[in-house]
Amino acid sequence: MKIGILGGGQLARMIALAGYPLGLSFIVLDPDNHAGAAGLSHHLLGAYNNPELLAKLADEADVVTYEFENVPADVAQFLASRTTVYPPANALAVAQDRLLEKNFFNQLKIGTAPYAAIDSLQDLQQAMPEIGYPAILKSRRMGYDGKGQFVVQSANDLDAAWESMNGAAAIVEGFVNFQREVSIIAARRPSGDIVFYPLSENRHRGGILRVAECRDNDPAQQQAESHVRLLLEALDYVGVIALELFDVNGSLLANEFAPRVHNSGHWTIEGAETSQFENHLRAILDLPLGSTQPRGHAAMVNFIGGLASDAELLSLNHVHLHLYDKAPRKGRKVAHATVRSDNRAEFQHSLNALEQLAEQVDNS
Amino acid sequence: MKIGILGGGQLARMIALAGYPLGLSFIVLDPDNHAGAAGLSHHLLGAYNNPELLAKLADEADVVTYEFENVPADVAQFLASRTTVYPPANALAVAQDRLLEKNFFNQLKIGTAPYAAIDSLQDLQQAMPEIGYPAILKSRRMGYDGKGQFVVQSANDLDAAWESMNGAAAIVEGFVNFQREVSIIAARRPSGDIVFYPLSENRHRGGILRVAECRDNDPAQQQAESHVRLLLEALDYVGVIALELFDVNGSLLANEFAPRVHNSGHWTIEGAETSQFENHLRAILDLPLGSTQPRGHAAMVNFIGGLASDAELLSLNHVHLHLYDKAPRKGRKVAHATVRSDNRAEFQHSLNALEQLAEQVDNS
Repeated sequence: MKIGILGGGQLARMIALAGYPLGLSFIVLDPDNHAGAAGLSHHLLGAYNNPELLAKLADEADVVTYEFENVPADVAQFLASRTTVYPPANALAVAQDRLLEKNFFNQLKIGTAPYAAIDSLQDLQQAMPEIGYPAILKSRRMGYDGKGQFVVQSANDLDAAWESMNGAAAIVEGFVNFQREVSIIAARRPSGDIVFYPLSENRHRGGILRVAECRDNDPAQQQAESHVRLLLEALDYVGVIALELFDVNGSLLANEFAPRVHNSGHWTIEGAETSQFENHLRAILDLPLGSTQPRGHAAMVNFIGGLASDAELLSLNHVHLHLYDKAPRKGRKVAHATVRSDNRAEFQHSLNALEQLAEQVDNS
Repeated sequence: MKIGILGGGQLARMIALAGYPLGLSFIVLDPDNHAGAAGLSHHLLGAYNNPELLAKLADEADVVTYEFENVPADVAQFLASRTTVYPPANALAVAQDRLLEKNFFNQLKIGTAPYAAIDSLQDLQQAMPEIGYPAILKSRRMGYDGKGQFVVQSANDLDAAWESMNGAAAIVEGFVNFQREVSIIAARRPSGDIVFYPLSENRHRGGILRVAECRDNDPAQQQAESHVRLLLEALDYVGVIALELFDVNGSLLANEFAPRVHNSGHWTIEGAETSQFENHLRAILDLPLGSTQPRGHAAMVNFIGGLASDAELLSLNHVHLHLYDKAPRKGRKVAHATVRSDNRAEFQHSLNALEQLAEQVDNS
C-alpha cells in the first residue's frame, strides 16, 4: 500500500518511519526541495495546490493524509474526488477556522474560554467588556506557534490589535486562568474503534511547545477522553487527532484540536506500546489499532532554533534523539528528544539534563 | 552524515530506519531493483563489484558498512582505500572462511566443536575417526541458513558429502550435544568502548532461525561477554558483532560470528533501550553507545516464505510488525515480529500466538 501525504516535513518523516515496518511506502507533496521526508518517500516537488501534482498524488496513493490542517478546502475536495482522504474534510474545515472550532466545541457542550467573532474594530470594542482584559485577538484562519496573535492588555491596545490582523476575520478569546495545559491524542478507525493515549502535560514558552510529558493515570484522563470522543464521533473522524485543553481547577476547557499527529504526542514513539504515527496509519488503513499503554515514564523536549551536539545528546541516559534534517533558524523546531525510563528518579534526572541542553541552544 | 551500505536488503532497511532519527542519510549498493532499503536511500543499482558504483558509494558516503559478510576481499580493500569502512576488513576475512574462523576462536582459547580442514575425499576419510559421526561437512566460504552443508551420518555418506561440495575447500565439524543455542550481540566504537546486549536464546528449524528470545540475567551472560570481548579486541573491531554459541552443560562453545547486525538481535528494536541498528550506527560514527538494557520480556519470530495478514498480526497484543517488502518465496525471510511486554504471562501468551501464526504460513 502507498500512503500519500500532503506536506513532507517532520510529521510526514515520522509517519514514514513508522510505516516502513508495516510494509508501506510513501509519496509526499511539498514545495521544499529539502523536505524532511524527501529521502523516505517519492517526493513530488511543488506547490500544495498544483493540480498536476495533486492528481499524481491522488492517483498513486491508496490513501491520502496530511501533516498540517491548513489544507485549502478545494485541495481537500479535489483529492477526495479521486481517492480516499483521511481525516475527513469536515474536520479540516472546522480545525482551520478558530471561530467554527469554538462554535463546534460549544455545540458539543465542551467548555471553552469566552470568545467572540471579530470582523471590525467596532466588533472588538463591543466584545471586550464581556470578554474582559487581558484577552487574545487571533486571526480566524492560519497561524500556529503563537503567530498571528495579539495580546490585548487594555482598551488602549484595541486599535493596534485590530490593525495587526490586516483586516482578516478574527476571534477574540478571554484569558483562562488555568493551572496547566494538557492534550489528549486519540485515534479512530472507520469501524468506529477508538484508542486514547494517556494525557500529555504540556509546557509552552513564547507560544511554542517546549516539553510534553506523559501523565499516566491522570485524574483528568476520563474527562479528556469523553471530550475527544464527542469530537471524533461528531466528525465521523478517521486517523489521529489531538485535543489541547486547559485544566482549570480540574475542569477541562477545550483550546483547539489538530486533525493530525501532534507535537505533544511525540513521546509515544518510545513511550507507548504503539506510537501515534503508527496508529494514525493503522487508523487510515482500517487496521486494528495498537495498544496505547505507556512504557514507563516518558517526556519529549523540543529543540527550537538550535541543537546540542550529537555526542552530548547521546551521552545522556534514557534519551532518544529525533532530528528533522532541518537547518537551524530562529524559532524553528529542528529536533526533539524523548526521555523514557521505568524509574521515576532516573527519568526526572535525565529530563532535567535534557531541558538544560535545549535551553542552552534555544534560539526562539 | 551519509552512511554507505553494501547491500540494500532488510538489514540495510532497518539500519536506515534507525538512522533517520539521528539525522543520517543513506546510500546503498544492491543489484536488486526491488531492494528493501531502496525507498529509504539513494539506491545504486548494480553488482557489488561494479567499480564505478563502488567508487560512487565510497565518494558519497562518510562511512561505509555492509549488511552481509561475504564481501569480496578486493571490494573491501577498494572501499577502504577511498573512505572509512567499518567493521574492519580483517573481521570480514575471518568471518567469511569457516576454517579461519574456527582457528581464530581456538587462538583466543574460545572452545568450538571438533573440526578439520577438508580439501579432498581423502582428508574427509582421514578426519572422520577423530571427529566422529554424525558430523557436518560445510564449504569454507559462503553459505548461510543451512545452505552448502551436508550432514554425514556414517562412513557411507562420505562420497556423497564430498561430491556435494563440488570440489570447494571445506571443513568438517563434529556434532555438539548442546542444550541450547544462544548468541550475544555487542557493539564497539573506535575508542574501545563496548556494550553487550542480554543473551538471545535462539531456536532454529531446518537450519533457519525461527525464534530469538531475550534472556536477561542469563547465567551464561558473563561467559558470552568475555568470549565476544576477546573477538572484538583481537580484531580491533568497530560496529555491531554477533557471536553464535552452543551451550553445553553451561559451557559456551563458539559456533560462528557475524560482523554485522544480526537476525537474533532484531528483538532489540522494541526490546532494548537502544536497538542493535542504532548502536551499529553510533559505533561506526564514533558516537557514545546507547544503553542495551532490556525493556521487559522480548522475543522475535521470523516469517519464512509466507506472511499472515496485517489485520491478524496487528490484532495480537504486544506484537510489533516488521515487513521487509519482499515477495514471499520458499525459504525466504519476508518479515519478523517482536513480542514485548513487562508481564511474563502476557508475553508468553502473545509469543505462543505469534509462533502459531508463523507456523501456519511457513513455507521453508
